[in-house]
Amino acid sequence: MNPLRIVVVGGVAAGASAAARARRLSESAHITLVERGPDVSFANCGLPYFIGGEITQRAALAVQTPQTLKSMLALDVHPNTEAVAVDRAGHRVQVRALDSGTETWLPYDKLVLAPGAKPIRPALPGVDDERIFTLRSLPDMDRIKAAAGSAQRVAVIGAGYIGLEMAEQFVRLGKTVTLVELQAQVLPPLDRPMSLLVEDELRRHGVKLILGDGIAGFTGGAELTCRLQSGRTVPSELVVLALGVQPDTALARAAGLALGARGHIRVNAFMQTSDPDIYAAGDAVEVADRLTGEPCAVPLGGPANRQGRLVADHIFHPERTKPFPGVIGTSIVRVFDVAAGLTGWSEKRLRAAGRPYRTVTVNDNHHAGYYPGAKPIMLKLLWEPDSGRVLGAQATGFVGVDKRLDVLATAIAGELTIDDLAQLELAYAPPFGAAKDIVNLAGFAATNTRDGLVDPVDQLPDDHAVQVLDVRPPALVKQHPLPRDGVINIPLAELRARASELDPQRPVVTVCALGKTAYFAARVLAQRGWRVQSLTGGIRASVDPRSPARLPTP
Amino acid sequence: MNPLRIVVVGGVAAGASAAARARRLSESAHITLVERGPDVSFANCGLPYFIGGEITQRAALAVQTPQTLKSMLALDVHPNTEAVAVDRAGHRVQVRALDSGTETWLPYDKLVLAPGAKPIRPALPGVDDERIFTLRSLPDMDRIKAAAGSAQRVAVIGAGYIGLEMAEQFVRLGKTVTLVELQAQVLPPLDRPMSLLVEDELRRHGVKLILGDGIAGFTGGAELTCRLQSGRTVPSELVVLALGVQPDTALARAAGLALGARGHIRVNAFMQTSDPDIYAAGDAVEVADRLTGEPCAVPLGGPANRQGRLVADHIFHPERTKPFPGVIGTSIVRVFDVAAGLTGWSEKRLRAAGRPYRTVTVNDNHHAGYYPGAKPIMLKLLWEPDSGRVLGAQATGFVGVDKRLDVLATAIAGELTIDDLAQLELAYAPPFGAAKDIVNLAGFAATNTRDGLVDPVDQLPDDHAVQVLDVRPPALVKQHPLPRDGVINIPLAELRARASELDPQRPVVTVCALGKTAYFAARVLAQRGWRVQSLTGGIRASVDPRSPARLPTP
Repeated sequence: MNPLRIVVVGGVAAGASAAARARRLSESAHITLVERGPDVSFANCGLPYFIGGEITQRAALAVQTPQTLKSMLALDVHPNTEAVAVDRAGHRVQVRALDSGTETWLPYDKLVLAPGAKPIRPALPGVDDERIFTLRSLPDMDRIKAAAGSAQRVAVIGAGYIGLEMAEQFVRLGKTVTLVELQAQVLPPLDRPMSLLVEDELRRHGVKLILGDGIAGFTGGAELTCRLQSGRTVPSELVVLALGVQPDTALARAAGLALGARGHIRVNAFMQTSDPDIYAAGDAVEVADRLTGEPCAVPLGGPANRQGRLVADHIFHPERTKPFPGVIGTSIVRVFDVAAGLTGWSEKRLRAAGRPYRTVTVNDNHHAGYYPGAKPIMLKLLWEPDSGRVLGAQATGFVGVDKRLDVLATAIAGELTIDDLAQLELAYAPPFGAAKDIVNLAGFAATNTRDGLVDPVDQLPDDHAVQVLDVRPPALVKQHPLPRDGVINIPLAELRARASELDPQRPVVTVCALGKTAYFAARVLAQRGWRVQSLTGGIRASVDPRSPARLPTP
Repeated sequence: MNPLRIVVVGGVAAGASAAARARRLSESAHITLVERGPDVSFANCGLPYFIGGEITQRAALAVQTPQTLKSMLALDVHPNTEAVAVDRAGHRVQVRALDSGTETWLPYDKLVLAPGAKPIRPALPGVDDERIFTLRSLPDMDRIKAAAGSAQRVAVIGAGYIGLEMAEQFVRLGKTVTLVELQAQVLPPLDRPMSLLVEDELRRHGVKLILGDGIAGFTGGAELTCRLQSGRTVPSELVVLALGVQPDTALARAAGLALGARGHIRVNAFMQTSDPDIYAAGDAVEVADRLTGEPCAVPLGGPANRQGRLVADHIFHPERTKPFPGVIGTSIVRVFDVAAGLTGWSEKRLRAAGRPYRTVTVNDNHHAGYYPGAKPIMLKLLWEPDSGRVLGAQATGFVGVDKRLDVLATAIAGELTIDDLAQLELAYAPPFGAAKDIVNLAGFAATNTRDGLVDPVDQLPDDHAVQVLDVRPPALVKQHPLPRDGVINIPLAELRARASELDPQRPVVTVCALGKTAYFAARVLAQRGWRVQSLTGGIRASVDPRSPARLPTP
């Protein structure tokens, strides 16, 4: 039998993974890797950190080079080479060497498309100014780094993951940074309350935030000015557009492969396109949402790598290849000292889709509070009312945010319920956790909600017929009052004795810094006959993300 | 209806949780908490850190005090009070105030026993010397801290969690520390290879380790000497016995409650003892192992807290209380800069029980290697051959060990398989993780093993008929040679061209620092017809836990 000929188009995450895995499975296959750019398998996610100088070795970003892929994996690697056409009937793909212009047809038995995605660069007036950049490749990175040298005022358009990372790195370089976001919050994938700490952290580091305003165009000349939809202008010497990505699927489209509603390549659970000899993987494909089965796209490195690996498995061992389970969209970003991220569905997404859900938010420390260095962490949990199954979670804090997201991503993969979260047996020693981890607490709070022990609300009531009961100690209330008139303050320790100060005819919302004492107070009142709700996640989740739980000890 | 009378015996983790939860569920219940010691709800796990001075505020260890339990929870709290008898027929428990000696009968509708465990203090010659301590309570802690002031030579007997923590803290205090352990390894719950890094870390910090030797007795006098079973002697001014705990079940036994084989209180999945009006929770009870359903005891704070909570749920709302799911024994310890822990079953435990399993060990960095500060982490995974279900995991490293243990504990709770681990979608940004997290890598390695792509061995072969092929770069091999004669060195990049240097008639074991390159090499050779195995976890897992993966860049 002739050796199997595999051509892989795209040599970064999905493509390089597919090629490497194919070699592990077959020493005899002829594996060709074609990459349009000069680099293969580079650390896409590291680009902002090199611009800002956190990563100092450019070579560190080249996880593999064409040379190492050849020597270690015996791959036939063609960087700076573009795939320009697919002849599906003839089982061949035409490639063009970008330096020489030479075109060649490469025969294949199996073709793997991993073209990735490209940054969105909307056709706005003035967008072609050479001081306006996007960030996707090592050359993009080099250009921004070079331009940053002489620029002082920098604008970043888009406050998603890349935009936030770039804003931080420009601050690190001493720039004056304006961050513009069309949504009324930073980190649009998260629910707004869970973005407040990031917003605050940006402001503390001097980032000028313009939220709820989009980019309308640019005016060039000696000075570059960003014109926003509101009419505002932002003068800048350097602009980074961080507006997300779109799949790079011109080749797949021209080849007549089926595409999804938003232009992604359609694949089955084994990453086969509408042509079974052509696979696709990575940022260009549409896969199933793990919770709903609906098509979705999650352009992130983790799924890309695993999809690429699965492609090779299916080429050589279709009988034992497990289908791709779909994506849940776990992601995280660090913004100065703060980390924030999510897994699964957000509340806004659930609401928009009309799916039933319930939610609680809990606060705690990232490890035992009695052990030095405990940092606050906040966790929002969403679950399906009937089954109790976890639908999503968001976390913000300083340390250990990634751990909780990973635990909850694993919980979603295992279809765990809120009862299961309450009983998770997590690793506890004082430097690492707590006897009741915040994930357990979220499970407790959720089951309490399900069981009717508490009725959570997520913001202070506008209705002044509602009695707002602040159960924090009076000294703390005095220093950090609620932004609302008519708040009654009875600390929890006095509530049983003083409950009669509340009007039994009017509903009560109990409030504290973290949400826990308010829940305790709600239990006290509910059992005495009050109609009572409790502010979930406390003041931190809805008013001030750094609201203290106690006054500093003098 | 008269208010329900609940008496809780034991006021630390399980007891305090039961009482607090009972109050949330019922404002009308009369809840009495009886605690033999002076403290309730104190941070047991923090004691070593106060002795060593990491925790400086003794008050921080009192999570609750009798006063806060009264003011916040309206509990009737009796510290320094011992429960001495249970009159089951009369539904009353006799308690004795330890200061006055006054005895009282307390009537109960529901009795909750949370007596905890006491440190094992074997009846060895000389064990009553006042310089020999155990650590369980705040007074124990105070005594050790006081005695440590004048002691220079300290012996810690037992290298489990408490023993390791105490050894570290004594080093912190400038003591000369000898750590004695009967097993031939530190951290006996782990498989020995996974304990090597901890062992090395202890030695680096000057701890004198005596492994495979037990304590036989003590000789008092002006100088205190520990006499070991081997005949060795260890002169010490202070000795801490850290030999584990035994359940404190005298009261339960006297009351005629059913006990388990090792003396723990038997409970059902709702924590009811053989008397349905008497519950028990915490370190004194025997619960189901989550994987096998067999009775086991895991004396740790997390399960104790959750069991206590469940008791209160079952007292007030039996109809909606979910059964306790059993324990998997997740635990972790920090030893200087190293963290190590496990979840689920270890290999030695599986082997002793005669249960089928397979295992791999993988190494990686705790976050993307290209981002500064990446630290090595090692993960051992055990799974059930037929189902692929995860049975256990162990991890060691410097950062992020707790995260991987928590993910794997969640995976066990969700009954995930090795295929599921390979597809977990964990949070990735360069400061937090990698596109392929080490948990994914463990899933990859496990499925590769299951699928016959690699045949892992866990140590260098003794048999010299086996060819040991070291595939590391020659310069690295020269500086860090394998401790074995006749090793062949062919780096992976040259293996395809030089495979003929190996004898095709003799089996090969491929070796590298981390295990990954050796796997790649094994694939190259296996497909060329060699009988080949690969050293799982590399040299780090079996020879040198700090074996470098590459030479330092000059």
